[in-house]
Amino acid sequence: MDERVDLAEALSRFDEHWSPRIVGRFNDLNLMLVKVQGEFVWHTHEATDDFFLVLFGRLTIQLRDRDVVLEPGELFVVPRGVEHCPKADEETHILLIEPRGTRNTGDVEAPFSSFGEEL
Amino acid sequence: MDERVDLAEALSRFDEHWSPRIVGRFNDLNLMLVKVQGEFVWHTHEATDDFFLVLFGRLTIQLRDRDVVLEPGELFVVPRGVEHCPKADEETHILLIEPRGTRNTGDVEAPFSSFGEEL
Repeated sequence: MDERVDLAEALSRFDEHWSPRIVGRFNDLNLMLVKVQGEFVWHTHEATDDFFLVLFGRLTIQLRDRDVVLEPGELFVVPRGVEHCPKADEETHILLIEPRGTRNTGDVEAPFSSFGEEL
Repeated sequence: MDERVDLAEALSRFDEHWSPRIVGRFNDLNLMLVKVQGEFVWHTHEATDDFFLVLFGRLTIQLRDRDVVLEPGELFVVPRGVEHCPKADEETHILLIEPRGTRNTGDVEAPFSSFGEEL
């Protein structure tokens, strides 16, 4: 993993939605890329904040009291314990940072739950 | 800090080189922007990896056995304990992620040492 990561090149290597790919590690964290489209699931991470940096497209992070809309070059950290539900009308590419072993659906188990997989 | 960060907008709010600005927090980490030009100082972080994502310009991370050259959209993690020295011929903008309380010059104390300051 001790290598330069070209995010665009890494994104070109997979197509599936909502399936985070691990492209690097930083201390106890996974650096992951994900492609999303449509609506995810409402969930909460009790033990960690949740980092989103949009690289392409447009992401709406729905919170219970408001929406946060992110365009490329914009980041948002969902504080731990805050329920949220990402959605994207168009295909959107995101850099995620999460502690290793974090389930993408947090407290919710779903068919598309993932802990990330190596790219 | 519980807000969206537009990286380009945040970068427009300061000009100094080698002076990281904290734009967000993620767990025990600072999310920081820095503008650099010229050569930094050889240093090592014994307790943490060092995350670099280039947003603008071109960064060379000199390691003792090779150079890693990063263009916009490329990231690199310097493993803990690995001596390195960033340099940039032209002004370059970088997203840094470091545990709070990390000195930018690692084991080296210099006039431009910084633990990051709030933007």
